[in-house]
Amino acid sequence: MNQVIERDQLIKKWIYAAAAIIKESFNDKLDIERKSNRNDLVTNMDKTIEKQFIEKIHQFFPGEHILGEEGFGDDINHLDGVVWIIDPIDGTLNFIKQQSDFAIMIAIYENGKGQLGYIYDVMQDKLYSAQVGKGAYCNDVLLPIIEDKPLKEGLVAISSALMSKEEGLARTVGRASSGVRLIGSAGIETAHVASGRLIGYLAAYLAPWDIAAGKVIAEEVGLVYTKLNGEKIDLLQKNPTLVAPPTAHKEISALLKTGKK
Amino acid sequence: MNQVIERDQLIKKWIYAAAAIIKESFNDKLDIERKSNRNDLVTNMDKTIEKQFIEKIHQFFPGEHILGEEGFGDDINHLDGVVWIIDPIDGTLNFIKQQSDFAIMIAIYENGKGQLGYIYDVMQDKLYSAQVGKGAYCNDVLLPIIEDKPLKEGLVAISSALMSKEEGLARTVGRASSGVRLIGSAGIETAHVASGRLIGYLAAYLAPWDIAAGKVIAEEVGLVYTKLNGEKIDLLQKNPTLVAPPTAHKEISALLKTGKK
Repeated sequence: MNQVIERDQLIKKWIYAAAAIIKESFNDKLDIERKSNRNDLVTNMDKTIEKQFIEKIHQFFPGEHILGEEGFGDDINHLDGVVWIIDPIDGTLNFIKQQSDFAIMIAIYENGKGQLGYIYDVMQDKLYSAQVGKGAYCNDVLLPIIEDKPLKEGLVAISSALMSKEEGLARTVGRASSGVRLIGSAGIETAHVASGRLIGYLAAYLAPWDIAAGKVIAEEVGLVYTKLNGEKIDLLQKNPTLVAPPTAHKEISALLKTGKK
Repeated sequence: MNQVIERDQLIKKWIYAAAAIIKESFNDKLDIERKSNRNDLVTNMDKTIEKQFIEKIHQFFPGEHILGEEGFGDDINHLDGVVWIIDPIDGTLNFIKQQSDFAIMIAIYENGKGQLGYIYDVMQDKLYSAQVGKGAYCNDVLLPIIEDKPLKEGLVAISSALMSKEEGLARTVGRASSGVRLIGSAGIETAHVASGRLIGYLAAYLAPWDIAAGKVIAEEVGLVYTKLNGEKIDLLQKNPTLVAPPTAHKEISALLKTGKK
């Protein structure tokens, strides 16, 4: 991929500009709409930010494809060439209800392979970023390669949907860990696994824009990012997901299959 | 109770001083011990901070009783007179694993009635405090009386223990809300209900020091703080707890009893 440094600098500038607009919006009344169900919401801010990103990508990198959560990008059914994958506000419910714990996410994939990933935890002012092969950062600090600890030594994030399922396999994972945490932003939860605060993150159904940036960052620090059943992520559809260091990833996969380690 | 303003100023000073010591300790190796089980941990910092608080209380308010999580206070079986209830680090697991999302908590009760309550979210630098009858604050900003919204309009925090139970009544509450969040600090979760970020917080077994400060703050903003079954909190033992605005409190209680609203 060409212009990697220029892309990196532009993306960071765009993200900080978008965050400023989002924070300013706290003073205004949000315009909230339902999507698939009463807790799948979108605001005017999600739409505004996505449109701005798309406009800038078109301006600087014409002809490149864009996959965006709010649908203003391209309707793509392949990952050939350069594809931008963007989530203007990850954790929209948190944005609406808490004005905290939401993230801006941008990733660039080339022929299906992650090249650049960005997760900006807006209210904590923490920008997690990675370029494939060059390591991951939190702001300007290099994140160390993850310690390969067993599940029982770490806190695990499990999505609301997965924790609430009656069959309870995800809860078996929770009980085998130090404890369950639930933030409600796939981006922030993945970033916390990458920075070693959490030992893993499991979710029932993540869309491509929930996964793309986090996967680039996670893999740069040595995490394993797959579907819940261990299969490869498919960035053209929703995936049940699991990200964790190798040992915990193996333990969690085994627990999910059999209830036993 | 005498010297309320002096007490308030001293407590805030003590809390900020303790927080500085805790943050400095991030550079040192923690000394970690198990208490009741592998996830019930105590560090040298919990003990150091509790001892310092007790020393200061003895110095300034000799003869007053102290109930502390780490057991350096008094072995009390009544709430007569003035009783200090302290938790040097609430969310010890978060402190150890995340170096974030833990709180310092201090409360003063007189003849069983809450007078002063303090929850300091150390890493966010947010001090939630209340004096009975005078309102609750986050730092120097008065917290508004809570909006009496229904459960379905808010995010609810449910403790790891309660979410993991197989019978699943807590998960029914989660599904009836906007979504479940799980921070792992009773203090911070209660503070987030008091500041309107969450609509409620349910926990399986909170000790007196997990409850005391939060209850003073919660009641000052109009929240209802009871046992899970709606009974009065008993600050001499562990309690399954529920804190929420009146309408959501009623809904959650009904769901827990019958699975139906």
